[in-house]
Amino acid sequence: MSDIVAGRNPVLEALKSGRAVNKILVDKNITRHSTIAEILSLAARQHVPVEYVDGRALIQTVPAGAQGIIAYTAAKEYVSLEDVLNIARTQNEAPFLVILDGIEDPQNLGAILRTAEATGVHGVIIRSRRAVGLTAGVARASAGAIEYVPVARVTNIVRTIEELKNDNRSCHPERSEGSQGGDINIWITGIDMTGEIDFRTVDYKTGTALVIGGEGQGLSELVRKRCDTVARIPMKGKIASLNASVAAALAMYEVYRQRNNNQETSTKK
Amino acid sequence: MSDIVAGRNPVLEALKSGRAVNKILVDKNITRHSTIAEILSLAARQHVPVEYVDGRALIQTVPAGAQGIIAYTAAKEYVSLEDVLNIARTQNEAPFLVILDGIEDPQNLGAILRTAEATGVHGVIIRSRRAVGLTAGVARASAGAIEYVPVARVTNIVRTIEELKNDNRSCHPERSEGSQGGDINIWITGIDMTGEIDFRTVDYKTGTALVIGGEGQGLSELVRKRCDTVARIPMKGKIASLNASVAAALAMYEVYRQRNNNQETSTKK
Repeated sequence: MSDIVAGRNPVLEALKSGRAVNKILVDKNITRHSTIAEILSLAARQHVPVEYVDGRALIQTVPAGAQGIIAYTAAKEYVSLEDVLNIARTQNEAPFLVILDGIEDPQNLGAILRTAEATGVHGVIIRSRRAVGLTAGVARASAGAIEYVPVARVTNIVRTIEELKNDNRSCHPERSEGSQGGDINIWITGIDMTGEIDFRTVDYKTGTALVIGGEGQGLSELVRKRCDTVARIPMKGKIASLNASVAAALAMYEVYRQRNNNQETSTKK
Repeated sequence: MSDIVAGRNPVLEALKSGRAVNKILVDKNITRHSTIAEILSLAARQHVPVEYVDGRALIQTVPAGAQGIIAYTAAKEYVSLEDVLNIARTQNEAPFLVILDGIEDPQNLGAILRTAEATGVHGVIIRSRRAVGLTAGVARASAGAIEYVPVARVTNIVRTIEELKNDNRSCHPERSEGSQGGDINIWITGIDMTGEIDFRTVDYKTGTALVIGGEGQGLSELVRKRCDTVARIPMKGKIASLNASVAAALAMYEVYRQRNNNQETSTKK
């Protein structure tokens, strides 16, 4: 599965066609060329990250025909945040979202998509910058789950959380006229080592967004402040930190556990 | 952190000194050389896997000085199964082991060691063939946990499970004279999609060994048959499979959850 588009016209056409582009690499010395300028302007409007690199770096990636610009396209199309919320509505379930604040490792994102698919997550929200997108490597690591879990890509996680909270406030009184699933009340739970409460004591049966930090740094301070709750995963040992995809999985499975409690009790018999 | 030893005498000395060696690669055309023969004989006695390769493959790995043989040494020494059981005894806790039936991906093994360290696992048991050992990549992925979690490497997982079960039988009546921790009764729970019971309904407060399958194939038939219980992780979705390190983490965390129940209740206040 090749996910590189090389050359000025191919990159321009990829953007114009609405094909999902994870990132554009451009030779920093030719940004004034007219087609390149058009590409950069389109990229800015579509919030596609652009890296300005040395021309030799491009030649190493694409020996012939890069013409100073390449684009990494996504292995799967992104959806909008609204699409994700609509999926929860049409399934008549309390929304279950996972917000990733900077996962950079393709294997971790793939594993998270796989667990998301297995625990009933309606959609995953990722960051467009300093984070891995839906690359071919992520698709492989997801073992097929990438086809079933909608992923929305946003430029600003903090603003996305605020949008979800504003939706809560505006919806609560007004949207109740919608007969079913109009209420998209979502409680934002950040998962972080510094959290004050045990992640298993949060009620996940109502609309839930789990916020998971990146591999190195956990939740950023700005994001943490916007969460309704910050919860920790209790553990023992000297290291006291988990792989990001493992922490995400424990939290997602706890949501699944609470929401499917009846089934589990009947399994026990 | 270099983990390659190249050349006949260096490899011989590494084996003689008891340094943990993950694998030996030898030029298939020079196995009759006397030092090489001595190395291969030592490797066989120490159950170190040997791969017979084309000489050019070695030159690609070590451009100069391989002399037809290289060894990949472990980033951390292995311990024995008995050592692991002794650790549980001295901590006066019911043993908690994790047996890995063929994890091949360094990132998965690293993530598993990390979760093991955070959930109170006394030791991890890995397979010496068709499985990743304690390589530099595993050490990195473990984020330091490799230093704290003892890992035993065995040639035959089936035989190891049988040894643990025989210990159970022989210990139950006789070892009770040992004043504390003499009883090493261990219940073997395989985690597999085909399991008949929910993994959360197993009692993990007594001695526990979790058996986790490899990335592709899950538990092998021979291993599955030796387990006292095979339990599944209930889930929804169309893919219905989890990354191996995620499945291992959910099971390990369930053991931690059951064993630390009192703490959690007090946390809630």
